[in-house]
Amino acid sequence: MRRYCFILAGLLCVNYLLWADVYQAYRERWLQKAEEAIPQLHETRLRPVRLVRSVADSVAYQGWRMEAIPGLDVFYHTALKRGDVYILDFGRHMTGYYSFKLSLLDRAQDAPVRIKFTFAEMPIELNTPFDPYPGGLGRAWLQDEVITLPYIGEEVTIGRRLSCRYVKVEVLGDSPGFSFAMSDMSFRALSSAPAYVEELSETTPEIIRAIHRVGVETLRECMQTVYEDGPKRDQRLWIGDLYLESIANAESFRQFDLTKRCLYLLAALAAEDGQLHANVFEKPTPHPQYGTVCQDYSLLYNVALLEYLKDTGDRETALDLWPVVVNQIRLAMTYIDDTQLYNPQKNTPLWLFFDWRAGLDTYTPMQGLLVFALNKSYELAKLLGKEAEVKEWPALARRIKKAVRERLYDKKAGYFVSGADRQVSYLSQVWMVLSGVLSADEGKKALRRVMAMPEAVYPGTPYAYHYLVETMIQCGMEAEARQLLIDYWGSMVRKGADTFWEAYDPKDDLLSPYGFAPINSYCHAWSCTPIYFIRRYPEIFQR
Amino acid sequence: MRRYCFILAGLLCVNYLLWADVYQAYRERWLQKAEEAIPQLHETRLRPVRLVRSVADSVAYQGWRMEAIPGLDVFYHTALKRGDVYILDFGRHMTGYYSFKLSLLDRAQDAPVRIKFTFAEMPIELNTPFDPYPGGLGRAWLQDEVITLPYIGEEVTIGRRLSCRYVKVEVLGDSPGFSFAMSDMSFRALSSAPAYVEELSETTPEIIRAIHRVGVETLRECMQTVYEDGPKRDQRLWIGDLYLESIANAESFRQFDLTKRCLYLLAALAAEDGQLHANVFEKPTPHPQYGTVCQDYSLLYNVALLEYLKDTGDRETALDLWPVVVNQIRLAMTYIDDTQLYNPQKNTPLWLFFDWRAGLDTYTPMQGLLVFALNKSYELAKLLGKEAEVKEWPALARRIKKAVRERLYDKKAGYFVSGADRQVSYLSQVWMVLSGVLSADEGKKALRRVMAMPEAVYPGTPYAYHYLVETMIQCGMEAEARQLLIDYWGSMVRKGADTFWEAYDPKDDLLSPYGFAPINSYCHAWSCTPIYFIRRYPEIFQR
Repeated sequence: MRRYCFILAGLLCVNYLLWADVYQAYRERWLQKAEEAIPQLHETRLRPVRLVRSVADSVAYQGWRMEAIPGLDVFYHTALKRGDVYILDFGRHMTGYYSFKLSLLDRAQDAPVRIKFTFAEMPIELNTPFDPYPGGLGRAWLQDEVITLPYIGEEVTIGRRLSCRYVKVEVLGDSPGFSFAMSDMSFRALSSAPAYVEELSETTPEIIRAIHRVGVETLRECMQTVYEDGPKRDQRLWIGDLYLESIANAESFRQFDLTKRCLYLLAALAAEDGQLHANVFEKPTPHPQYGTVCQDYSLLYNVALLEYLKDTGDRETALDLWPVVVNQIRLAMTYIDDTQLYNPQKNTPLWLFFDWRAGLDTYTPMQGLLVFALNKSYELAKLLGKEAEVKEWPALARRIKKAVRERLYDKKAGYFVSGADRQVSYLSQVWMVLSGVLSADEGKKALRRVMAMPEAVYPGTPYAYHYLVETMIQCGMEAEARQLLIDYWGSMVRKGADTFWEAYDPKDDLLSPYGFAPINSYCHAWSCTPIYFIRRYPEIFQR
Repeated sequence: MRRYCFILAGLLCVNYLLWADVYQAYRERWLQKAEEAIPQLHETRLRPVRLVRSVADSVAYQGWRMEAIPGLDVFYHTALKRGDVYILDFGRHMTGYYSFKLSLLDRAQDAPVRIKFTFAEMPIELNTPFDPYPGGLGRAWLQDEVITLPYIGEEVTIGRRLSCRYVKVEVLGDSPGFSFAMSDMSFRALSSAPAYVEELSETTPEIIRAIHRVGVETLRECMQTVYEDGPKRDQRLWIGDLYLESIANAESFRQFDLTKRCLYLLAALAAEDGQLHANVFEKPTPHPQYGTVCQDYSLLYNVALLEYLKDTGDRETALDLWPVVVNQIRLAMTYIDDTQLYNPQKNTPLWLFFDWRAGLDTYTPMQGLLVFALNKSYELAKLLGKEAEVKEWPALARRIKKAVRERLYDKKAGYFVSGADRQVSYLSQVWMVLSGVLSADEGKKALRRVMAMPEAVYPGTPYAYHYLVETMIQCGMEAEARQLLIDYWGSMVRKGADTFWEAYDPKDDLLSPYGFAPINSYCHAWSCTPIYFIRRYPEIFQR
């Protein structure tokens, strides 16, 4: 009998380890702290600045450019008839709520009115049929709304939050019995970013100043009640975006309440085993995207918290969230196999994101990111006086670095390879530098070699380019870093970007991680980091 | 100088006559009385009773029938995926507001959901593409709504009032990231009719009882805060519908507040010269359809008021609205020319409706309706002790009757003709009987001859058939009247009508006065009058 009791106790214990909620004692308070830090949204009421039309143009980005046409002044008094199409340009990217008012021009409304609105960040969204929808994400992200109004005359606000610069108006239903016009329209643009960011000096080259301006707009638009990844599509808090947004914010708006809120929100909504979810939603009530866990993102949370502490000195928050940091390392370590490397198959396979570049092998980048996170997490431990708790971390990092060097470094070629096919990618070198596996000199050589190889896998998103620029700076490649920023983000500016795009390959304007370019986010958080570079390293970028 | 003063005074006088508001002293009070009489709307919450599918069937009305399919019980738990289509049958015609609720089946909502709803009175509305729209009335009357929901879980109510029996659900946007179901849907059906109407005795033939039931449903659905013509399309108070609805109501629901409200509302919104508008709107604030004046409708207002007085004994209202009666006659008399007939060209041409039958010549029907209105208005005068005010009316009626008989009666053929082409129509005979120009015997002969002529213009709507049945009863053609009711309204019942249709020609299922059958109203006030006949003349119809 006693023996069975032991077995039962053992089972309960295992059960507890497997199923206990490691943050049970903290969650409620964390969520409360997250709610208390909700920043105020600043409102700006905007109206269209011109009428435009779409012009097919093979030289223009994605094949379309917008051309101003006269008539905005008379538009508000022009009878709208079925089949009429107008495109209104608000002159800037906006995130918020769209309102319009229809007014009677003559007689009495004797039928409902039906209007289709299409809200577009980019011309392509106005010139590509949405249906049949070929994309891989939810069709309903596309911003077309059909409104039927039994009674005109009152201002109507479309319920869903929108992101756009352009509004296309298509009249689907009128009546021979009366005439009406769209007598007003406006957009209530929202952001939790303060209005002001210091402009760059006029001595800074115009292209840098332009990149800075677009970066500021990008970040401002993504700063809502969380750091959103894209205000048009996804509209939620992802850890990877949080990290880059928060370091860009620290160099610009310095709206640290938002960072604090996001750190607490992610913690409060982590899985019961302690692992952070890759993203969380605020509405209808805060909840994670269950089952979406991304190993690289989980670890970058630790780095984001470290940077937050360094920027703000807010030890209370950092100490509060310290258990999250410890758990992300603990859980990642369950994937270390006998070779001392992160083995994605060792435990439940987790998503390793790193970039949207199709075919990227993430094996080697993951080793580097893990070491980078160990280093940064230990730096945080030291700042918080927690080294004793995690005294094994430096040794863990050393063991991985040693193993990585032995197993993944092509010494002869002078660069790192990844996976069974020995893939050569920019990101493998990047993470080996950021982790300290490669020295600055070795990193410079590795990067120069790889970047000279046409077959090397280059980044597919501004997210991945961010780490590349950071790496170049660390390797003393200041001129190259500056040129890369100008070439990559600058070419978006030259192609007409109001805000920086989620996915961008200068060689492929129609690149989409989701099989349909209009569903791409064209104002994307992770693309805003030129602000960070330009403002943090003025000696490199502002000259 | 003095001479100019006279001229000026003369001009001012003419101006006063042309422009003075003849109801200025009454309007405010009339409108207030109309508002005070707004009836309460009774609510019924309905849910679908079965899933159905559309089956093309050349024998079925308009080519489609609905077939029940199993699965309603599991529908509420079935994951909805893009491309899915379901048709829900609520089992009866409803007017009101549709609500639904989407619920998460698994994971977290990571994209908005997009659903198209099509609300249909009839199967044809679910099986005919609405666009490109070929109809002659506003496209937006068609009841398709596209809803994008960023957050599911709450009950959503579509803002516009709808009329339907069937709801088609088409899933336009889902997401690979989660599953959802439509966990609830309901319809808040509204009517100002009391719930109860006495059923017919079981000894009454089933077809008559079925016609009665469908008539009751038709009237109930059209009884909102005014007598509407069609709750799906038009949704407003027309005088012609008011007249027929109010006499049907008097025989059934006896909700006389509604009649009173409508009589006052039409009066309060009449034109400044005293002429009633053919129809008025309640929202956003009460107003007429400016410029839409229909001579036959204006005159039928007088008849409706007379019947209201006879049914209720409400002398106060009848006396209050007496000036409107006088003005309708006065204004119509301005069209009498030297031949003593109503000449549509004598003054501003007004719409003469009578029926939607294409090509109907309204000249002769108009003479008859004018005499009918004169007779009924004089009957009203007598009930109110106002004969002295209008003592010329009987003589006017006699003069028209004499002229009509001399000029429009084909004595040899024994029927009336109309217009330059001497058109032979049912309605010419009808209005000559109702006016008393033809005696019962003459009317019977005329009708029998005309109805035996294949080329005679027969009615195109239940509205016109109403007057035909009434005429037959007056002519002692009880058996024919009964048979016509069974043949005409009964054939709608046999073709599956839940409510009686706006336009119906047994020979042309796709008849539409607006060039597109789906825009027809399939629950139309003026078609409800079998209730009136069956209940008022039980000896003819209930045996």
